[in-house]
Amino acid sequence: MGSENPTGAVNQQERPGFEQWVVGFVDGEGCFSIAVVRNPGCRLGWQVQHEFSVTQAAPSRSALEELIEFFGCGTIIESKRTDNHRYPLMRYSVKSRASLVERIIPFFEDHPLITNKKADFEAFRHVISMMQEDAHLTPPGLRAIAGITEKMNRKQRSRYLESSEAIRQPPRFDN
Amino acid sequence: MGSENPTGAVNQQERPGFEQWVVGFVDGEGCFSIAVVRNPGCRLGWQVQHEFSVTQAAPSRSALEELIEFFGCGTIIESKRTDNHRYPLMRYSVKSRASLVERIIPFFEDHPLITNKKADFEAFRHVISMMQEDAHLTPPGLRAIAGITEKMNRKQRSRYLESSEAIRQPPRFDN
Repeated sequence: MGSENPTGAVNQQERPGFEQWVVGFVDGEGCFSIAVVRNPGCRLGWQVQHEFSVTQAAPSRSALEELIEFFGCGTIIESKRTDNHRYPLMRYSVKSRASLVERIIPFFEDHPLITNKKADFEAFRHVISMMQEDAHLTPPGLRAIAGITEKMNRKQRSRYLESSEAIRQPPRFDN
Repeated sequence: MGSENPTGAVNQQERPGFEQWVVGFVDGEGCFSIAVVRNPGCRLGWQVQHEFSVTQAAPSRSALEELIEFFGCGTIIESKRTDNHRYPLMRYSVKSRASLVERIIPFFEDHPLITNKKADFEAFRHVISMMQEDAHLTPPGLRAIAGITEKMNRKQRSRYLESSEAIRQPPRFDN
């Protein structure tokens, strides 16, 4: 979990209020996402994916590098654009549950978001805490998580909840 | 130029670092735009429009109201969406040149943006300062402003610079 950039702490000291810049930037461009996706390699055939991300066009990549320094975790991923902008999109991404639990979630607990994105954060935090209790490894837990994802972000119907596995209400795995 | 909401100052005192939240939020979602548009009522037949805006989906309207309190200017405008999101879009908007000169520009001079949006702000500030010198009322000044707009935001070709008026290089108006 160590930061790959040891200068992060120095930068934060040099910039009073930088924590609030991060909160505002994430209120603007951040995304807390949970997805329940098919994965035959998982016990129930479905995997819960979690990601905290912040997206910018390539010329603002350095602002995403600030986030790597600040949080001491995450990477920058180039995304393919589906619109007509001229620059590639870059995404600061934290997928590791350990990083989310130890770095990202505590920060936003201590420095609350101001926009309605706070509701997504609360749902995200809820799912991660359920996963810490292995809820995602049981059908009832997975259904509960899928139900929460339907209330997040674009509020799309969960593919898992529409799947035959969920509809059949399979018997509970006793580990 | 007085704030319509006298509690703004109190809120800022209650939230240390709120200025940096504003910087981060604008780095994420703000827009500094200049447009040179046809307007037969203007001396040269073209008008320079200026706007600082921050857009959010309706559930985050309260965050835009924070900006009205904070800057002591601006209004919230509902925009029509052209995408498939479920909520209407709300835009915090400051168009008044006096408000831009007295409130918005000094704030971002004192609290610099971190992303590449800073370049748009610098171009925006440059145009507004030219307009304070009435540059937009002369063909050479208007051409210079239109040239700057082509380097801002989506870097589109200026309609004014493609117009017959600009191509003909009309004689300079001596007021």
